[in-house]
Amino acid sequence: MRFSLGFFPTLRDAPSDAEIESHKLMIRAGLIRRVSSGIYTLLPLGLRVHKKVEDICRRELGISNAQELLMPTLNPAELWQKTGRWDVYGKELMRVKDRHDREFCLGPTHEEVITNLVANEVRSYRDLPLNLFQIQTKFRDEIRPRFGVMRGREFVMKDGYSFDVDDENASKSYENMVAAYERIFKGCGLSFSAVEADSGAIGGSFSHEFMVLANSGEEEISNCESCGYTSNVEKTPVKLTYNDESSNGDVEKVHTPNAHTVEEISELLKVPNSNVLKTLIYKGQKNNYAVLIPGDRKLNEVKLGNITNETGLVLASATLVKELTKAEVGFAGPIGLENVSVIADNSIKGRKNLIAGANETDYHHINVKEGSDFECEAFADLLIAEDGDECPSCNAPLSHQRGIEVGHVFKLGTKYSDSLDATYLDENGETKTIVMGCYGIGIGRTVAAAIEQNHDENGIVWPLPLAPYSVDIIPMNMDDPDCVEIAEKIYDELVHKFNIECVLDDRNERPGVKFNDSDLIGFPFKVIIGKKGLIEKKVEVKSRKTGKVEFVDFDNACQFIADLVSSKVSL
Amino acid sequence: MRFSLGFFPTLRDAPSDAEIESHKLMIRAGLIRRVSSGIYTLLPLGLRVHKKVEDICRRELGISNAQELLMPTLNPAELWQKTGRWDVYGKELMRVKDRHDREFCLGPTHEEVITNLVANEVRSYRDLPLNLFQIQTKFRDEIRPRFGVMRGREFVMKDGYSFDVDDENASKSYENMVAAYERIFKGCGLSFSAVEADSGAIGGSFSHEFMVLANSGEEEISNCESCGYTSNVEKTPVKLTYNDESSNGDVEKVHTPNAHTVEEISELLKVPNSNVLKTLIYKGQKNNYAVLIPGDRKLNEVKLGNITNETGLVLASATLVKELTKAEVGFAGPIGLENVSVIADNSIKGRKNLIAGANETDYHHINVKEGSDFECEAFADLLIAEDGDECPSCNAPLSHQRGIEVGHVFKLGTKYSDSLDATYLDENGETKTIVMGCYGIGIGRTVAAAIEQNHDENGIVWPLPLAPYSVDIIPMNMDDPDCVEIAEKIYDELVHKFNIECVLDDRNERPGVKFNDSDLIGFPFKVIIGKKGLIEKKVEVKSRKTGKVEFVDFDNACQFIADLVSSKVSL
Repeated sequence: MRFSLGFFPTLRDAPSDAEIESHKLMIRAGLIRRVSSGIYTLLPLGLRVHKKVEDICRRELGISNAQELLMPTLNPAELWQKTGRWDVYGKELMRVKDRHDREFCLGPTHEEVITNLVANEVRSYRDLPLNLFQIQTKFRDEIRPRFGVMRGREFVMKDGYSFDVDDENASKSYENMVAAYERIFKGCGLSFSAVEADSGAIGGSFSHEFMVLANSGEEEISNCESCGYTSNVEKTPVKLTYNDESSNGDVEKVHTPNAHTVEEISELLKVPNSNVLKTLIYKGQKNNYAVLIPGDRKLNEVKLGNITNETGLVLASATLVKELTKAEVGFAGPIGLENVSVIADNSIKGRKNLIAGANETDYHHINVKEGSDFECEAFADLLIAEDGDECPSCNAPLSHQRGIEVGHVFKLGTKYSDSLDATYLDENGETKTIVMGCYGIGIGRTVAAAIEQNHDENGIVWPLPLAPYSVDIIPMNMDDPDCVEIAEKIYDELVHKFNIECVLDDRNERPGVKFNDSDLIGFPFKVIIGKKGLIEKKVEVKSRKTGKVEFVDFDNACQFIADLVSSKVSL
Repeated sequence: MRFSLGFFPTLRDAPSDAEIESHKLMIRAGLIRRVSSGIYTLLPLGLRVHKKVEDICRRELGISNAQELLMPTLNPAELWQKTGRWDVYGKELMRVKDRHDREFCLGPTHEEVITNLVANEVRSYRDLPLNLFQIQTKFRDEIRPRFGVMRGREFVMKDGYSFDVDDENASKSYENMVAAYERIFKGCGLSFSAVEADSGAIGGSFSHEFMVLANSGEEEISNCESCGYTSNVEKTPVKLTYNDESSNGDVEKVHTPNAHTVEEISELLKVPNSNVLKTLIYKGQKNNYAVLIPGDRKLNEVKLGNITNETGLVLASATLVKELTKAEVGFAGPIGLENVSVIADNSIKGRKNLIAGANETDYHHINVKEGSDFECEAFADLLIAEDGDECPSCNAPLSHQRGIEVGHVFKLGTKYSDSLDATYLDENGETKTIVMGCYGIGIGRTVAAAIEQNHDENGIVWPLPLAPYSVDIIPMNMDDPDCVEIAEKIYDELVHKFNIECVLDDRNERPGVKFNDSDLIGFPFKVIIGKKGLIEKKVEVKSRKTGKVEFVDFDNACQFIADLVSSKVSL
C-alpha cells in the first residue's frame, strides 16, 4: 500500500478521554476512531491487526478440529428466558423489539443459540464430539465503557463451544482448547500466562484465563518460578500460620483514641500489624457479615463472595457499622458483636494475643484469643495472595505480575444443555445430557493488550505476526528520481516476488514526518533509501524493536528483508 | 476435513416454509439453519461459501485501491437524524436504546457513519480520493422475510463508499468500482449482467445493478444482443410508434355490455388490442391520476412514480374509480374525466381511431383522437419494455432475461456530504463539498443466487471458486484396509502437498449415502476409490457439473486433481 493512498490518519495528540497507552496509541496511530461511548470504527490499520489475530485463531483452532460457523447477532428472547439469563443479565444485555413487538437481544455471548442448534441437530453419540466457534461482533452495554477497544460496548470476539458425551471427554476437549489457546497467543508473538481462574457468573465448574503480561494490566497473577504454577490472584489459595507468643493475660479494654486503622493502633500499642485483628463489616443480600483477617493482609472479596454464596457484597456504610457495632468505623471487633455472621480467615484459628476493636468508639481489646474470647461461624481462605506466600503446589515463594485478560476457557458441565434439552442417545439407546465447554478470546482486547505490552515513547512496537504491514519503505527525498526509483523497485519486488506486506511512504513529506509516523504506527522494519546509501548502493534496514541497523546492498536488500520477515535472520 | 468430524447436517427434506430452490438446498445441504424469521445461523459449509465470496471481494477491491475498515453496528440516532433517514426509513430500521436511554439503530447501510468519519478526517484535496469498504452484518426488519438468506433480516453485506473532489473524479471512482464488480462476479464463476437501474430511494443520480442470471430471478433485464446494452426493465426506455389508419368519423358512444378488459372490448369490436386505450386510475399522496397507455402494453409503475414524483402510488379502489368516473371499473376513459391528472405514454401522442371507456358502465367511445377529443397534462415514457422493442442504444430488437440483484452501485453526488458537512479545502483554499458514490454486494444473496443459477435435481452444483471444498474423496468400502489406505494417502497429499480443500468421507455409510450427500452439497469433484479401481490401481474422478468421469492411475491422481482444481485441465 502506498502511504499516499492509504487511509492512515495519524495524530500528534491523543484525545483527553484516553486513559491508557493502548487507547492513546490506537487513536494516534490511526487504528480506531470513536463513534459513540465504547463504540469504535476500526480504520484500515486497526482492522488489519484484528484480522491477523482472527486468522491466527482460525489457523490454530482448525488444527484442533474446531469448525467455524456464524450465529446471528439477533438472539430470540425465548432462548434466553429458557436459561434464565434474560433476567439475570440485566442492563448489560441490549434488547430490541422487531416490527411485530417480538423481543431479541444483541448477543453478548452465544451459549443459548449454539446449544439450541446442537440440541436440534445432534441425535446420537456418533454425532459427538463437536467443537464449533465463531468470530463475531458482540454487544455488552457496559456501565463504564473505557480504555478504547479494551472495554467497549461493541467488540469482536472469538467464541467457541465444545459438546461431549461425558465429563471425561469434555475435559479432553477443554485441554485441547487450552493447548490451542497457548499456540494462538504464542503465534501472536505475545508474552502471556494461562492461569487458574474463578469461574464467576457464567457458571462453570473450572476455568483458566489467558493473560497478556503488562504492567498496566487490570489483573494480578500469582506465579511460582519454581514449579510454574500460575493463578489469578483472586483464586490463589493462601495458607498462613502465625506463631503468636503465649498470651500475657485476660482480655482487657484499653483506650485507643482516634486509632481507627490497623497502622494507627499498631503504632499506638507498639505491636506488629499482624497482631491486629482486622474486622470488616459487609452487607449482603441475605445477611450482614463481620469478616476477620490478620491486620497485615488484604481481604479477597471474590473468595468472600464464594464462601457466603452472596453476589453483590458491599462494605457496610458508616451508618450500618454504627448500628451493628454501636461504635464509629474503626472500632469493630468480634467480642459481643450480635446480629452479624462472623467469618474468619483460616489463619485466625487458634490465635492469641490479638488486638481487636471493642465495639465502642476509641476503645480496643487486647489479649484477645480466638476460641475462648470469640467464636466464628466459619473459617475459610479469605486472603489475597502476596509476594512470598507459599505456592499451593510446591510451597516455594510466590511472586506476582500484572496481566490483561484476553482469553477465558470454561468447563460448563450441563448448565446450558439441561435448560435447552441438549441430549443424545448413547450406545445403549439411553438419553444422556451433552457436556459442554466454552472458550472465548477478545480479538480487540488482544490487539490492545499487545500494544500495552509492546510500545515505547514513540509509539507501537508490533510483534511481527500482528503488524498491519511488516515493512515501511521510506525514500528520504521524493525529488530525487534515483531515490524514488530504488524505493519503487524494492516495493515492487517485496510485494510481488516475496509476497511481503509493505507500505511505501511516497508522500512529499520531510523524512522526520515519515520516521515519526513509522514509529507511531509501529511497522517492525524500516527500509530507508537515503543520500549516502544511494552513493554506496546500499539501503538502511532498521528494526523498530531493537533500533539496530544494517546497511545492505541494493541487490541483496529484498532477500535480506524477506529473511527478516520470516525470522530466518534477526536484527 | 473428515466428514465424520465435520458438522455437515444434511437433510432428506426441506422445511415447508422454503419456497425457492436455493433456500431448500441451503437447508438440506446443511449450509444454514433458521433461528427466527429471516434470521439464520451459517453452518460451517455455508460460512465457507460466504467467506469465498468475501475473499474474492477483498482481492478485487484491493486491486482497485479500496481499503477495508469496519464500522460499528450501533449507529447513533443523531447521525441518522441529520440526514433525515431516522424518520424516512420507518419500521425497516431496527432501533435500540442503551442503559442511558440514548437511541441507536442497527446499521442497515452506513452512509451516515462513514460520511461523518470522512468529514472529521479529511481536510484537504490531498486527502482525496478515498475508497473505503467493509464486510459486515446488516439489519433490515423486512415486512416479509423469505427465501432464506436471499431476503433476511440479518445478513452479510459488502458496502463501500467513494469520496472525490468533484463529479468528474466521482465518475472515475464509479467506473473503477463497476470494473471491480465485474471482476468479482466473474471471479465467483457466475453468469451475470451489469444493468442500468433506477436509483430509487437511496437518492443517487445514476446507478447500475449487478444481476446473477437465473430463471427464478425476481428482476427482469432488457438485453440487446446486437450492441450489448442491458438495463433493468424498470429503467429501459421504450419508444413506440403506432401507425393508425385515418379515423372514420367523429367520436361515438357504443354499448359494450360486460366488456371490462382490453381483451373483451377488442374481441367485441373486432379490433387489435393496440387500438384500445387503457386508462388506469392511480391514487397518490398529492393527486389522483388517469394513466393512458396502449391496450397491448403494460404500465411501468417505477416510471410513473418518477414522472409524478410520488412514492407509494396505488391502483385506485373500485369505490374511488366509481367516484371519479361515475362508472364501474373497466369503463374509464379520458373524455370528460374531471378531478384527476391525465398522464399518457408518449406513444399516445397523435393517435386516432382509439377505443376508450366512456365513464359510463357498459359504454365505450370509438373513433377517439388524442389532441382533439381529449388532452393530456403530460406525456412520458410509461411502459415496460418487451421482447422485440427497439434497443434505446442501437434500435435492434431487445430480448429479456430474469436475474437476481446481488450488487448495486450508485453515484450519490453530495446528498450525504451536504447534510453531514463533509467538505475539503481545494488548491485555492476554498471549501468544497465532497462528491460520493456507494457500492453494495449482498454476500448471502450472491451465495443464494449462485445456487439458483447452479443446481440440478440432486443438489447444488457449485462454481469452483465458491465451493466449500473442491474435492470429495469417497472410499467405497471402509472395511477394506486397501481402500481406506489409498483414500487417506490421496487426502493427505491433496491437503498437504497441493493445498487443496478436500473432504474425506470416512463415514461408515453405504456408497449411496455418500454419493447423495456429495451431490447435495455440490462438491465440484468426487474422487472415488472402488473395488475395480483398486485392482487396476486407478481412482475414478467425476465432475459434479458435467457428470464426466476419468480413471487415473494412483500415482498421477493428485496431480490430475490439482490441475482440475486450478482449471489447467477440464472434465
